[in-house]
Amino acid sequence: MMRRFSRSIVARRSLASAATAAKTAGATASATSPLANAQTQDSAFDYEGMVENEVLKKRQDKSYRFFNNINRLAKEYPMAHRQNEADKVTVWCSNDYLALSKQPEVMEAMKRAVDKYGAGAGGTRNIAGHNKLTMQLEAEIAALHKKEGALVFSSCFVANDAVFSLFGQKCKDMVIFSDELNHASMIIGMKHSGLKKHIFKHNNLAELEQMLQQYPKSTPKMIAFESVYSMAGSVADINKICDLADKYGAMTFLDEVHAVGLYGPHGAGVAEHVDFEAHRKAGIASPTLEQNNMQKLALDRIDIITGTLGKSFGAVGGYVAANKNIVDFLRSYAPGFIFTTTLPPAVMAAAAEAIRFQRSNIDLRTAQQKHTNYLKAGLQDLGIPVVPNPSHIVPILIGNADLAKQASDMLMEKHKIYVQAINFPTVARGTERLRITPTPGHTDDLSDIMLDAVEDVFSELQLPRVKDWEAQGGFLGIGDPNFVREPNLWTAKQLSYTNADLNPNVKHPVIEQLEVSSGIKV
Amino acid sequence: MMRRFSRSIVARRSLASAATAAKTAGATASATSPLANAQTQDSAFDYEGMVENEVLKKRQDKSYRFFNNINRLAKEYPMAHRQNEADKVTVWCSNDYLALSKQPEVMEAMKRAVDKYGAGAGGTRNIAGHNKLTMQLEAEIAALHKKEGALVFSSCFVANDAVFSLFGQKCKDMVIFSDELNHASMIIGMKHSGLKKHIFKHNNLAELEQMLQQYPKSTPKMIAFESVYSMAGSVADINKICDLADKYGAMTFLDEVHAVGLYGPHGAGVAEHVDFEAHRKAGIASPTLEQNNMQKLALDRIDIITGTLGKSFGAVGGYVAANKNIVDFLRSYAPGFIFTTTLPPAVMAAAAEAIRFQRSNIDLRTAQQKHTNYLKAGLQDLGIPVVPNPSHIVPILIGNADLAKQASDMLMEKHKIYVQAINFPTVARGTERLRITPTPGHTDDLSDIMLDAVEDVFSELQLPRVKDWEAQGGFLGIGDPNFVREPNLWTAKQLSYTNADLNPNVKHPVIEQLEVSSGIKV
Repeated sequence: MMRRFSRSIVARRSLASAATAAKTAGATASATSPLANAQTQDSAFDYEGMVENEVLKKRQDKSYRFFNNINRLAKEYPMAHRQNEADKVTVWCSNDYLALSKQPEVMEAMKRAVDKYGAGAGGTRNIAGHNKLTMQLEAEIAALHKKEGALVFSSCFVANDAVFSLFGQKCKDMVIFSDELNHASMIIGMKHSGLKKHIFKHNNLAELEQMLQQYPKSTPKMIAFESVYSMAGSVADINKICDLADKYGAMTFLDEVHAVGLYGPHGAGVAEHVDFEAHRKAGIASPTLEQNNMQKLALDRIDIITGTLGKSFGAVGGYVAANKNIVDFLRSYAPGFIFTTTLPPAVMAAAAEAIRFQRSNIDLRTAQQKHTNYLKAGLQDLGIPVVPNPSHIVPILIGNADLAKQASDMLMEKHKIYVQAINFPTVARGTERLRITPTPGHTDDLSDIMLDAVEDVFSELQLPRVKDWEAQGGFLGIGDPNFVREPNLWTAKQLSYTNADLNPNVKHPVIEQLEVSSGIKV
Repeated sequence: MMRRFSRSIVARRSLASAATAAKTAGATASATSPLANAQTQDSAFDYEGMVENEVLKKRQDKSYRFFNNINRLAKEYPMAHRQNEADKVTVWCSNDYLALSKQPEVMEAMKRAVDKYGAGAGGTRNIAGHNKLTMQLEAEIAALHKKEGALVFSSCFVANDAVFSLFGQKCKDMVIFSDELNHASMIIGMKHSGLKKHIFKHNNLAELEQMLQQYPKSTPKMIAFESVYSMAGSVADINKICDLADKYGAMTFLDEVHAVGLYGPHGAGVAEHVDFEAHRKAGIASPTLEQNNMQKLALDRIDIITGTLGKSFGAVGGYVAANKNIVDFLRSYAPGFIFTTTLPPAVMAAAAEAIRFQRSNIDLRTAQQKHTNYLKAGLQDLGIPVVPNPSHIVPILIGNADLAKQASDMLMEKHKIYVQAINFPTVARGTERLRITPTPGHTDDLSDIMLDAVEDVFSELQLPRVKDWEAQGGFLGIGDPNFVREPNLWTAKQLSYTNADLNPNVKHPVIEQLEVSSGIKV
C-alpha cells in the first residue's frame, strides 16, 4: 500500500520527520499498551520517503552507482559495444581474466548442452535438477583442487555465506579469525553464523597468533582468508597460516575466487602455486610427500576452498571443494544450496570445459602475468600510483570517489577504454581506484595505448601521482619509504614454462582425473 | 588442518565425547583466563567427527537425500535419460512448468547470445557485467508485472534474502508479519533482517489482523506472503491482505515464484489473475480504474513482487519488481546484488524470450491447468490422497519419509516415471509427499499411464488412501468432513480463452511495452 508522493524531496523529508515523531510516540504507546488501537494513529509510515532518502544519501556522498552498458563481444575480444552497437570500447576491467568466456571450445560446449538439455535445469538439485553435467563439473572442480569432492552453488557469494552460516548453526562454540580485507560474502556469512569473530589486520599473522593464543587448543576455530585479495592484489601466506592452524587446532577456509585459473601450474590457485614444481610434475595426480621435498602440500592443509566459475572460468556460479564429509554436510544442510534452482546444464558444461581447457594451457597464465608485468612497469615509469602487490591486479589509486568516476568517464568517452571506477562499499572511502585487469589478449600494443590514455587522464584531471603520495608520507604502500615490496608470485622460471612442460595426464578424462587426484587410482 | 581419521564412526563418537569434555574444561579456563596457554591443551576439536555425525543424523532419521541423475531431453520432452543414456524416464515433477526450457525460440535466443557475447558476463553489475540483454530482461519483467522497474538477482533465494535483510538494515523499527508456510528463503531473509516478526497461521487473515492491531498505524510493517504455496498448492487472498495493509499501514511483499507463467492472462501471476478480464483486455497496458470496475488493481496494491526465472521461465535467476525507488534502493545497497557476478548474457536472453513467448501464449497456461484437472480427477477416482488446493500443484500425501522414498523409487524403477519424494526440510516431518507437476506436454494419455502407476505403487506398498486419512479424522484437508474446498483459480470461462482472445499489443517490443505499462505512454 505504498503511497505515491508527488511532492518534492524537501517536502517529503519534512514529512518524514513528522512521521518519525509520530512513530516515536507510537512506539512508546506500543511499548506500554501492546493493544493500543491503531485507529487512533492517523498516518502510515512513509515508506516511499524512507526509501528515496536512502538513495539520495548515495547521490550526496558520490557513491551512487551508474552502471555502464558494456556488451563484451565474443568475436572481437577485448572489445565491447555500448548502447549503440557501433560505439566500441576496449574492456580493461573484466574479471573474465583468461577470456575463457569467448573461448570457442567453451562456447561450443555451452551451445551443445542447450541443444541437448534445453535452457534451464528445471528444479533444485533434489527435485529434478541434478544431472550428469553437474556431476561432471563437480568432479572437474574436485580434481582441480585435488580434493575428494566439490559442490556447486548459485554463486561464490552464496557458497561463502552458506559455509559460515552452517558452521554457526552446527558448531556454536566455534570462533572465527578473519582477515580484515575478506570479501563481503565472507563477512556476511560470518555475521549470519552468529559466531564469535576476531578480525586481524590484513595479512598480519603476528596479530592472528595473538588472537588464537587466547583460546584452548580444543576450542573449535576457523581461520578465514583469501589467497589473492581482489581490490588490492595482496596475497596471503598460506603455509604460515596453516602452521598456525596446526599449532592452535583451527580449521582453514580459503577463498581462491580471484586466484583460480591464474596461479598454480594448472590454475588451481595460490594453494597449488606454493608447491608449483611438485604439482607440475605430478599433473592431475596428488604429489607424494617425497615429491614435495617432504613438505605437506598446501592444497591438503586447507580444509575448505571456495572458488568461482564466473571469473577465470568464464561462466557463472561458485563452489566449495573439500573432503567428502564436508561436501555432504553442506549438501545436506545448507539452505542456500537446498532451496534454489540448479544452474543451467549449459552453464555447468561451459564451466567444466573452461576448467579442462585452462588446466592444460599454462600459456594463458604466463601471458596474463607477462602483460600485467608490462603494464605495471609502464605505469611505474609514468609515476602513476599503483597499489604494490605480487599478483595480477593493477589497482591505480585515485583516492576520491568523484575524481575516480571522472577518470573512468574520461577514459571511456575520450579514449574508448573501459575501466570502472571502484568506490564504496567495494573499497573503503578515500581509497577509490581504477582497477585494471589485463588478460592474455591485452598485448603490449594495447598496453601502450592504455598507458598514453592513463597519462592523459592523470594530466587533465591533475590526479595525485606517486610523488604526491610520497609527499604525504605514503599511502597503501605507494610512496612509502618503509614499504617492502614482495616478489611476484610467478617467478621468471615459472613464466618460462609452456604447455609442453606440463604432465600429459592433464588431458585425461574427468572421472579418471578425480580417481587419481582423490587417491582412488595412482 | 582437519585430520583424516580411519577409525570407525563408533570410535570417532567416543573421541568426540572426550573432545567435548576437554572443550568444556577449556572453555572454563578461557573464561577465567583469556590468555590461557594453548600449549597446555593437547588435542584439537574433532571437526571431522562433528561433520560426520551431522551427516549420520540425516541417515538415521531418513531425511538423507539421494539425488537422482535426471537429464531432461530438450527434443524428447517430457523424457529424461538417467546415468545410462538409453535408460529413459518420464519426468513428472519438474518446475519447468511450461516446458519453456525446451522451447525452440528460447533455446535459439540463448545460443545466439552465446555466439555474440560469449559464455559469461565477466563481472558484477557495477564492474563490466551490466549489458543490453540484462536491461532488456529487466524491462521485460517490469512490463510483465506492470511495475516501474525490476532487478535481476542470482536466484529468488538471493532476492528474497536481500529484500528482508536490507529493510532490516535501513528500517530497524519495521515489524514483519509472515505466513507460516512462507518459503525458506523468506524465513532466512527475515532472520537476517533482525526485525521483529509475527508468524500467522497459514492464510489465516483473522490472526494476521489481530497481530497488526497491536501496533500503531505509524509503525513500519511488512506483510510477507506467497501467492501459490509450492508444496501444498494453497493460494493467498491477495486483495484481502492488501485491505489489511491499507487499514494498518503496512507494505506488502508477495512471492510469485510458483505462479508466474501460470496465472493471469499474460502469466504475471495471481496478482494479475485476480483482475483477469481487465488485464486481458488491456494487454500490456495498465488497465484504468474504470476498466477494472473501479476496483484498485492487485498488481498496483502490492509493493514488492519477487519471482523466478528458473521455473516457468525455463532458465535460472530471480528478481524483484517494484516501483523505481525500491529497485534503486536494492540496487544501491543489497550486498547479495552488489557483490556477485551477473548471470550470463545468454541466460538473460533466454529468460526474456521465455517471458515474451509465454505472455502471448495463454494456450500454454490453459493446457497446463486442464492436464492438472484431468490428473486430479483421476487420482480422486482412485481414492489417492491429494492435498486439496485451487492451483496447479498435485501433492500426493504419503506421510512418512521412508515410504515416500520407496514410492518414488518404485515409480522410477518399475514404471519409468520420475516423481521426487519430498521430505524434511522442504516439508514438515510426517507430511512427506510425492509432488506432481503436469505441464502442457503431459497429455491425458500420459496421465492415464501415470494413474495406473500410482495405483500400483499404492497397492504394492499399502500406502494410506483417502479413506484411511478419513478414519483418522482427516489430515491436511484430506478426508476431513469440515474442509471447505476452494474453487480452482482458473474458471471454466478463463480456460476457454485462446491466444486469439488476447490483446494484440502483447506482441509489441519490450521497451514500448515498458513505456505503456509504466504509464509513460498510453
